[in-house]
Order: sequence, then structure tokens, then C-alpha cells
Amino acid sequence: MDFNSFLTSLTTSFVIFVVLMLAFAWLSRRPSNYVIYYPNRILKGLEPLEGSGSKLRNPFSWIREALSSTEADVISMSGVDTAVYFVFLSSALGILVLSGLVLLPVLLPVAATNHVKLTNDTTSNGTFSNLDKLSMGNIEAKSPRLWAYLIGTYWVSMVTFYILWKAYKHVSELRGKALMSPEVKPEQFSVLVRDIPQVHEGRSRKEQVDSYFRTIHSETFYRSMVVTDNKKANKIWEELEGYRKKLARAEAVFAASKTTGKPEGTRSTNRTGFLGLIGKKVDTMDYCNEKINELLPKLESEQKTTVREKQQAAAIVFFNSRLAAASAAQAVHSQMPDSWTVTEAPEPRQIIWSNLTIKFYERKIRQSIVYVIVALTIFFYMIPIGFISAFTTLENLQKLLPFLKPIIKLNVVKTVLEAYLPQIALIVFLALLPKFLMMLSKAEGIPSVAHAERASSGKYFYFSVLNVFIGVTVGGTLFSTFKNIEKHPNTIITVLGTGLPANATFFVTFVALQFFVGYGLELSRLVPLIIYHLKRRYLCKSEDEMKEAWAPGDFGYATMVPNDMLIITIVLCYSVIAPIIIPFGVIYFGLGWLVLRNQALKVYVPSYESYGRMWPHMHSRILAALIIYQITMFGYFVLKEFSYTVILIPLIVFSFLFTYVCSQKFYQSFSATPLEVACHEVKEIPNMESIFRAFIPPSLRSEKFEDGDQFEDALAQFSRTTSSI
Amino acid sequence: MDFNSFLTSLTTSFVIFVVLMLAFAWLSRRPSNYVIYYPNRILKGLEPLEGSGSKLRNPFSWIREALSSTEADVISMSGVDTAVYFVFLSSALGILVLSGLVLLPVLLPVAATNHVKLTNDTTSNGTFSNLDKLSMGNIEAKSPRLWAYLIGTYWVSMVTFYILWKAYKHVSELRGKALMSPEVKPEQFSVLVRDIPQVHEGRSRKEQVDSYFRTIHSETFYRSMVVTDNKKANKIWEELEGYRKKLARAEAVFAASKTTGKPEGTRSTNRTGFLGLIGKKVDTMDYCNEKINELLPKLESEQKTTVREKQQAAAIVFFNSRLAAASAAQAVHSQMPDSWTVTEAPEPRQIIWSNLTIKFYERKIRQSIVYVIVALTIFFYMIPIGFISAFTTLENLQKLLPFLKPIIKLNVVKTVLEAYLPQIALIVFLALLPKFLMMLSKAEGIPSVAHAERASSGKYFYFSVLNVFIGVTVGGTLFSTFKNIEKHPNTIITVLGTGLPANATFFVTFVALQFFVGYGLELSRLVPLIIYHLKRRYLCKSEDEMKEAWAPGDFGYATMVPNDMLIITIVLCYSVIAPIIIPFGVIYFGLGWLVLRNQALKVYVPSYESYGRMWPHMHSRILAALIIYQITMFGYFVLKEFSYTVILIPLIVFSFLFTYVCSQKFYQSFSATPLEVACHEVKEIPNMESIFRAFIPPSLRSEKFEDGDQFEDALAQFSRTTSSI
Repeated sequence: MDFNSFLTSLTTSFVIFVVLMLAFAWLSRRPSNYVIYYPNRILKGLEPLEGSGSKLRNPFSWIREALSSTEADVISMSGVDTAVYFVFLSSALGILVLSGLVLLPVLLPVAATNHVKLTNDTTSNGTFSNLDKLSMGNIEAKSPRLWAYLIGTYWVSMVTFYILWKAYKHVSELRGKALMSPEVKPEQFSVLVRDIPQVHEGRSRKEQVDSYFRTIHSETFYRSMVVTDNKKANKIWEELEGYRKKLARAEAVFAASKTTGKPEGTRSTNRTGFLGLIGKKVDTMDYCNEKINELLPKLESEQKTTVREKQQAAAIVFFNSRLAAASAAQAVHSQMPDSWTVTEAPEPRQIIWSNLTIKFYERKIRQSIVYVIVALTIFFYMIPIGFISAFTTLENLQKLLPFLKPIIKLNVVKTVLEAYLPQIALIVFLALLPKFLMMLSKAEGIPSVAHAERASSGKYFYFSVLNVFIGVTVGGTLFSTFKNIEKHPNTIITVLGTGLPANATFFVTFVALQFFVGYGLELSRLVPLIIYHLKRRYLCKSEDEMKEAWAPGDFGYATMVPNDMLIITIVLCYSVIAPIIIPFGVIYFGLGWLVLRNQALKVYVPSYESYGRMWPHMHSRILAALIIYQITMFGYFVLKEFSYTVILIPLIVFSFLFTYVCSQKFYQSFSATPLEVACHEVKEIPNMESIFRAFIPPSLRSEKFEDGDQFEDALAQFSRTTSSI
Repeated sequence: MDFNSFLTSLTTSFVIFVVLMLAFAWLSRRPSNYVIYYPNRILKGLEPLEGSGSKLRNPFSWIREALSSTEADVISMSGVDTAVYFVFLSSALGILVLSGLVLLPVLLPVAATNHVKLTNDTTSNGTFSNLDKLSMGNIEAKSPRLWAYLIGTYWVSMVTFYILWKAYKHVSELRGKALMSPEVKPEQFSVLVRDIPQVHEGRSRKEQVDSYFRTIHSETFYRSMVVTDNKKANKIWEELEGYRKKLARAEAVFAASKTTGKPEGTRSTNRTGFLGLIGKKVDTMDYCNEKINELLPKLESEQKTTVREKQQAAAIVFFNSRLAAASAAQAVHSQMPDSWTVTEAPEPRQIIWSNLTIKFYERKIRQSIVYVIVALTIFFYMIPIGFISAFTTLENLQKLLPFLKPIIKLNVVKTVLEAYLPQIALIVFLALLPKFLMMLSKAEGIPSVAHAERASSGKYFYFSVLNVFIGVTVGGTLFSTFKNIEKHPNTIITVLGTGLPANATFFVTFVALQFFVGYGLELSRLVPLIIYHLKRRYLCKSEDEMKEAWAPGDFGYATMVPNDMLIITIVLCYSVIAPIIIPFGVIYFGLGWLVLRNQALKVYVPSYESYGRMWPHMHSRILAALIIYQITMFGYFVLKEFSYTVILIPLIVFSFLFTYVCSQKFYQSFSATPLEVACHEVKEIPNMESIFRAFIPPSLRSEKFEDGDQFEDALAQFSRTTSSI
């Protein structure tokens, strides 16, 4: 790739970004689009636009608003998890800015002023020699100028350690503060109990659980909720909900048609058969009402039998204080620790109910199987990615597909192809994976969505680092390195050091494309906007349907993290070899921070809260990236035959030490709730009844009475302790 | 070594054993020796001899008594730890007996009936070809007879899995039963708190600890005891004790001299200077009384200042129920888990006070340093051991030291040298190490003796397996294998498989020497007996001194375990290659069980109780031995060019799986007290005052009043909660 195509790529991306940003500024001012651009504020009952009236608004005022928002704003609008994500973004930004401040003014001149003619050590495949002059490739072997790069390696590492340490401390405090907040949160009063042993004949699960916990926690036990097999109840409930929606829709249509003139209104009709296409034609409102009335008692009786007869070997146990729950969740209960496993209860809304009843050893087996599948996935994706990067250079393409030659010779086509093809292929490629990995993580038997997202994000990280980063690095120079490895098997150690510099431009472009187009689309929300307007015009009739059409969805930062991680891995690894990549990394994280801050404050509504438990994962992965970087540098220095390369070894050792110390100092308070935190008083005497109710799955909730008397009936045998609060 | 010298070695050992056993039978019948042979019974206030009178006793009745004793007897006489050690011995015995029952009748004929002339694949260095015929070395490569050995490998592994699983379950129950016993044990009501953060100005440690725990455990907190720096108090106290002993001795001498006729008695005198050799001559009794009266107030005032002013950053916190203590010990307390580290309190008698105040990171650093030292020790001991085993064969000795030739040529000298020299050297060698390792383990900052012994036992295991087993195996055939490895570097994988068979006889002799002489000495207690009689005659004057002279000491099984482990590693590894070793292993563990059962019931008084926490260590090390065995077998089958060797791979995988499942199923309940167990009621309302008092170190205990009013004075500021029991 030559310098022109790189510039073209960059400029095009930038233009796209500016266009999208202007589109955003224009679109977001139209009140009819408020639900797309300010749904979080609307759902929280706030005015879509803060402060000044809409007409006086500067099109870039969102930037000011994002910059002036505090962490407390983020927490109140979007929760601790989102705030922690911003800590991550700003840590990454901080690392890169501080590194850049020293590396750019020092290393670029060191490289540029080195007037040595080098023949084959290049930081770009092809003829992009402009970058070469600024990179470490321009330094000849054994040169004393390598000292500057060695010190640079140390500097980047030190900056990373410093910022990560501060960030971990800060997140730890954030988590602590959130956990000790005086608000009553149901999950803080409960624990999840799994692997309950076989129940004795003539005794219900409920009795078994109650007596077990009443014996041990005689003074703090409140009551228990045995997990039930809700499959059938869920099915009936979903059917019921379907008819409800249909009814609401038909009623809306009827009301609308009435106002538009027809005195009797238009009553919708539908067919009862397959997909509403065949069968008898009926009046929808009557039909739905009939069906609802038919299903209601069916659901009720199913609820009763479910609660009574379908009790499973898992339960949620409630305590009358946060302290008691936190303390119980951390203790081994059974003499055989593979039964009565007690853990912190996840939030009710993020429990994966069907996973709760999976038994101890089944979980372990599932986990092993999932790991094998993930390993296979990572391994076999290598093939297509290697293929793509082999085509990255047009020379290869021409050689392999000679009939394309005339087309490629056209300058425009050539530039566009070179600039975009491989990067787009890669990005599309990566977009396919998260859902698959999430499915796998759920299959492991993980009890909560937050935990499953952490697990899948971890898998994605391995995937992206191994496949995209290492795969492209080694594969991109496959033809050149293969011969080397064949002759000298020992070069496996330095393979990353050899492969990396040659791919600098690929990754610079990759990073650039990511942020401009990605964040532009994110900010403008063009796709949701179009879908919403289409739905509004042609599909949505009832209020609920409208709401569903503009529902902003989850912040989904767990799927963004691996991508960010890939970027920081790339930028760290190239930071010293080709410092020119640092500004791009800074823009990526800076722009990301800005755009996502806007989205967090105004758009997305997080669907769960894990109080920053993602942080240790982020932290250890940044450290992993740092260690990859250090090892790469070690390999590269060896290649440069620098005699003081050994000086890097203490740095690598220190990185591992730092990882260990951090996990010792901080991790435990993330995996459990420290008692010091849990012992803080709650605002009011907690309403244990409502805490209990929060965990009842929707399909088992009483339909008839708001206060849930009916469920209470069904719970008759859910014996209750005399609440001692 | 030829067959004769092997037989000589064996016979001599056996004769020594018989002589020692007869000596034991004779000596133990003399009442004056009862304190040596029955001290545990005497200290427990039981009759030295059970049942029948001493005159009618059969000299071998101890065998009957040992065999008929139950596990409950062992627990009541010597505690759970000892009982667990016997579970270990009988598990090892069971594994070997069950293995032998199949391997001996199957594999010996398979080998013996194979009439193939082999030239260089021998199970013994030298000319000991009799054993060869019975070993796997007698089977030629690719023979279908190898199937029998493959199945044998599987059989031994399966037997091990089965027995270990049952044993772990059994020990787990033993531990549970002991922990839930209704007796009040002080350590079950307390937790150890370390890493207490900096105290604020104007506040005492005591107040800090009290307020912290009272906030968190408001209802169950009883009081706390801040660990103090007792160095000075200890010194004064020891001095005082010294004078007390001297006084008692002088008084005993005086009384004795009075009875023997002298009306005024003989008053001992001593000099006040260096070692009692120089200085003024004074009357001992007067001098001591004077000194004691001088030191007592000094001690009292030092106690007061210690308790008040020398409070350290560690404490023991008491709860008013076992459940509360068990639950608190398992929970993370502080938001920064490197402060306020809470763990289960060790028994008062086994606390290493000086280690309690070592800070979190200092502990980690100390640990790393100790690991490095241990690694160096293991590595550098290789050199002398390699040296010894190089001399093992007399041929080498003759070659290296030709002037010894005439001496070695003498048949008697040759036999004795060959039979004993290397083994004795090895045993002496191994005896030097445990104290050093124990010292290192204590330096790690471990808070209890039991834990330190586990740690040092683990280190010793690595040492013995790496140095003795692998070292001798590879070193013993050093001259022959070196050439091989030089030519084919890939043989590193099969080096154990190559080296092992050649050393079979060395290890058979090693095992045989271990049990006969070792257990003979153990049973007869000749050394303690002689020391006791010498002391009694020439040194001891007072009652206390006598008691000290026959004090039986600790059972010390923690130092025996690594040795047993080495034996089981050796026997397992050779079980299939040379099944003839199995009977020796059986005798080792059978005889060990018998002799030590006697010693446990009658002699040793364990100095601490850890409720079987040694078991997981033993379990995982037996499994480690099993895996070494399986890998060795794999290597050996590869050498035999057996095409179905891959069948062993699932076995090795299964071993790792078994290790994992066991740790998941059982380990947690060993590292913590399960709440299910802790919630059992104690016999009586615990006397919290005496529980608290149990943890006061002897040098801080009140001297004047039995009920400890004086200490209470010193504890004035140890504010107490209104005991709510």
C-alpha cells in the first residue's frame, strides 16, 4: 500500500465521519427523532434536551455536554458498569497520551535523523516508505540509537502500570460506593443456592432448603424461593402476551379509524390458522379477548402446579440483612463442597433461569466442552483470516488471479481495493462472532447474563488477539517468514518481532477505519433511525409497539470491550516500533470516549448492573496486551542484535509481578462483597416482601391482583419465617 | 550388585530388626522403662499396661494390641491428625496389596516364561540377573506380552483412584466429625486478623480492632486480643523460668541430701559469672529466690507495658459462637483485601507469634525468596547425590580409585560396601534436610506450626522425588545415558523410562533398609532410652527435670510423610516394571502401620491438632507419584516400541481429571470450616473468658493469681462487650 492509498483511506473515513456527525446534528434537533437520540432521558422522565431551548442549540453542543458530564452523572444515568467502561476508555487514552508525549518527540527524530540506507527491513508491505523513515525499522542493527527505543519500551510500561494501578483503585472505590449505597437492592439480600442434594422421600425441596438454612442462619434467614421448571408456564405466558399485544394493536387501529371518520370504526380481522394466512377469518378483538380469557385460568393453574410440583435442585435464599447475605455467599456451607454451593445472587432481571439447575459436574463438563469448541473456533478461523491477509497485497492478487490485472491497473479501483477490502473483510468477519460466543458462554451453565458476557468477552479477546493480531502479523508476511522458519526453527521466538513491523500500515489503517466509520455510525444512529421510522409508518399501531420500536437497547459494552482491547493491543505493540500509530490510538479512544459518553447519557439503557465486575477482566487483558508487547519488543531487539536486550527481562518479570500484586490487592473484593461494605445501613427498613417478589419470574407473577394475593396462595407451602426485622 | 549382596543386605537388616524387636519386648517390660515406652498413656493418666498384668504379657502382645485398636482409639489417644496419617498408611498399603494381588501372579510368570536372550536391557547394574528374569526388561520389544504390562499399568492406576477416593471421603468425614464435636475448642471461637491498616493518631489498636469488628459483627463479636511484641517480656520470663528450675533442682538436691543422713543437707552453690564458672560463689537457693523476687515485679511491669504499648498490626478476635467465627473467617472483610485479612485462628499452642505481624506484601516477598532458596537447594544437592550414585557400582570405584582394588577384592568388604554404603549415605543425607526446610517454611511468615509443617513437608517431597528418585535414576546410569542424549536429544522424553529399570535393585535395597532398620529403631526407642537413663542418673534432680527427660515429644508425622511418599513413588514406578518390589512396599507400609500404631497409642503426644488438614497434601502427592509412574511407563513402552502405547494417554488425562474433581469435591471443606459443620451445638455454654485466656502467651500470663486478676488489670483497656451468651 502506498502513501496515497493510505491517505485516501484516511480522508474518506474522515469525510464519512464528518457527514455522519452533521447528519446527527441535524437529525437530533427534530423532535420526532428525540426518541431515537434521547431515549434514555425520556425513559428516565427527563426533558430530552437539557438547559437551553432546542432552537438555540449549537450543532456541536453534545460535545460540550459530554465533556462537562461527571462520573456521577454517568452512574445516575447508566449505572456503575458504564462508568467503569469509561474508566477503561480514559485509562487507555491516558496510557497512549502519556506514552505519545514522550515517544513521539523523542523516537521520531531519532529515526528520521538516521541516514542509513536499509534495504529489506520495512514497516509496510509494498512501497510505503514514508512511514519507514519514522519507525524503528530505520535504525540499523547494533546502533546505539536503540537505547532510545529500549527506554521507550520501559516508559510505555511504566505509564501503563501507573495508570492501571490508579484505575483499579478508583474502580474499587466506585464499586464499594455503589454496593454500600443505602438503596435497597433485592440481589444484595439474597444468595443463589445450587447443587442441592437429593431430597428425602416425603419432603419437599422447599422444606429441605428452609430447614437447612434455618439451622445454619437461624437469626438472619428470611425465606427461600425454590427454582422451578417454568417451561410450560413460560409457554402459556408468552402465548398470552402475544394475544395481549394483538388485542392492543387491534384496539389502536379501531380507535384510529374511529377518529378518522368512520363511525363504526374498522375492526381488524385475522385468520386462525398457520401464520394468520389460512383458516377461519375472525374478528381480532373478539378472538383475542376470547383466547385471553381461555388462557388466563390455564396459566393460573399451571403457575400453581409449577410452584408446587416442579421444584428443582436450586433456590434463591433471602436474608434479612445485606451483611448476612454477603457473609453467607462467601462461606462453604456443605461438608461436601460439591453440594449446597452458595454464591451471590445475580440481579433478578439478569438471571438465566434455565442454567440455575444445571448440576456441579455437568457444569464442569459443559465448560470443558465449550473450551474445546472455542479452541477449535479460534484455530480454524485462522484459515480464512490467513487467506484474507495473503490477498492484502495487490501484488499477490495479481499473481494469483492474473485475469484481474487489467481491472486492478485502473488507479481508482486499485486505491479503493487496497485501502478498504482487507479491512472491511476483517471487520465483517469479527462482527459475526460475538453472538456465537455468547451462546457458548451461556451453555457453560453460567447463572447470570453479566457473567456470561464477561465470559464471552474473554473468549472474543483471545480470538481477536490470536487471529486478527497474531494471525495477520504472521500470515501477512507468510511467504517471507515461512522460508526463514524452515531454515532456522529457532526463529519461532522472534517471529512476532519479525512479522510485526512489516504490518504497521495495515494496522494503522485498521485502527483509523474503526474509529471514523464505527463511531460515526454509532453517533448518528442511522440504522435504528431508519428502522424506527419504517416501523412507525407501516407497522406500529399501539403505544407499546411504538415504545418497542424505539427501545434503545443495552449499552452492550461487553461486546465493545474485546474490540477496544484489540486496538490497545495493536497500538501498544506498535507504540515503540512505529510511534506514528499512537495518535491514531489516541483518536480512537478519545473519540470513543466522547461519542459513547453521549450515547451513555442519552441513548442506551443498560439491561443489568454488575457493579463493575468487568473491570478485573479489562485490567488483566490490558496487562496481557502489555506483556505481548514486551515480548514482541524483546524479539525485535534480538533481531536488531542489540546487546543490552536482556535489560527487558526484568521488565517482563515485573509485569507478571504487577499482575499478581493487583489480583492479590483488589480482585477478592470484586469476586465477593466485602463485609466492610455490606455492613452499611440501608436507607429504610427493607420491605422483604417486595425483595422476595422481585425474584419471581414474570411467567409466575400473579395476573389478577397487583398485590399478588394469588401468588401468595400458590406459595402457601412456601413457609415463611416470622420476619424479624 | 549381585544377588548375594542383595540377600546379605536383606538378611542383615532383618536380623537387626528382630534383635531390636526382642530388645523392645524385654526392655518395655521393666517398670523403670515405662516412661519411655508408655509416656502417652502415663500423661493421659492411664495404666501403662492395659488389661492383663505385666508378668503374663506375651512379648508380642503389642502387635495384638495395635491390630485390635480402632480408629476411635487413635483419635482419643493421639488426635485426628494421627488418625489421618494411619488412613494414609493404610491407603498406601491397600493400593500396594491390591496391585500386588493381580500383578505378581500375572506379570511374574509372563516375564519368567519369556525365553528370549536379551543382552543389555537389565533391571540391575552389574550382574544381578536373577531379578531380570522376573521383570519387564525380560520382554523383547514389540512383544504381544506387553499387553499384560499395559493392563497392569491400568490396574494399578484404577486401584489407586478407588482407594484414594474412598480415603478422601473417609478423612473428610473424620474431619467433619472432629470439628462438630461438642467439646469447646478455643480456636473454633476465634479468627486471626492480620494486616490491620495504620491506626489513626490518638486511637489504640485495640479500639480500632474492636470498633471495626463490632460494626460488622455487632451481634456475635465477643472481644479481641491485639498481638503484642513480646520479645522483652519473653526474655524476662525465660530468665525467671530458668531460675525457677535451678531453685527446684537445688531444693531437690537439698532434700535428697537430708534424707541420706546429713542433718543440715547439702546446699548447692554456684558462681554468678559466665556459665557459672567464674564470679562470686553463692548459695544457689538463696541466690535464686533473690533473683526470682527481683524479676517478678520486672516481669509484671513489662507485661503491663507490653499489653498497653506494644500492640501490633495483628489480632485474634473472639466470637460468641463457632458458626460466627467460621463464617467470619471465610469472608472478605476489607474493600482492599490486602488489609484486614481474616483467617481461621490456629490452636493457641501452635501459633507462631512472631510471624503474625508480618505484613501482606512482606509475606509474599518472603515466600518468593524462600521458593528460590528451595529451588537452589534442590538443584545443588543434585551434585553430591549424583556423586554418590556414581560410586554405587564398585566397578566405578575400582576404576576411579585403583589403589582401593586390593581392599575391595576382599569378598566380605565388597559385599558390605555394595550392600550398604550408597544407601546409608543417602539416608544420612536426607536426615539433614527437614530442619532446614522447616526453618525456611517458618520464615515464609506462616502463622501456625501445622501449616509450616505442611509447607516444609511439601518442599521435602519435591526434594526427595527430584533428587533421590529422578537424580539416582538418571545419575545412576549417567555414563550410559549421556552418550544417548548427546546423540539423540529427543530421548529426554524417555530418559526416565530408560533410567528407571536399570536402578531397580538399588531401590529394592533402599526400601528394604528403610523399613527394617528404621522401624526397628523406632519401635525399640533405644536412643531415647539411653539418653533418658543417662540423664536420670547424672543430671536430673527435680521432678520436672525427670519429666522433661522422658517427654516423648511430637508424633512428627509431617517429617515422616515425605519419606513415605518417596517410598510409594518408588514402588508405584517399579510396580509394573519389576513387580518384585511390591512385597517390599507392602512390608514397609504394613510394618510402618503396626509399629507406628503402637507408638501413637503409647508413646508420642502430638503437639498440635489440625483436624486432618494434611490429607489434601498427601492425596495430591500420591496422585503426583501416580502421574510420574504413568509418564515413566509411557516412556518405557515407547522404548519397547509397543504400538498400542497411546492407550496410556487417556489414563494420564484421567489422572489429571481425577485430581481436579477431588479438589473440587473435597478440598474446600479442608481449607475452611463448612457452616454445616460449625453450626452444631457445643456441649455446654462456652466459657468465653477461658477461651480468651487460652490465647494469652505464657510470658504474659499472670504469675501471682491463678484466676488472673492481675492480667485483667493489665487488660483494663481491653474493653469488653457485654457478653451476650
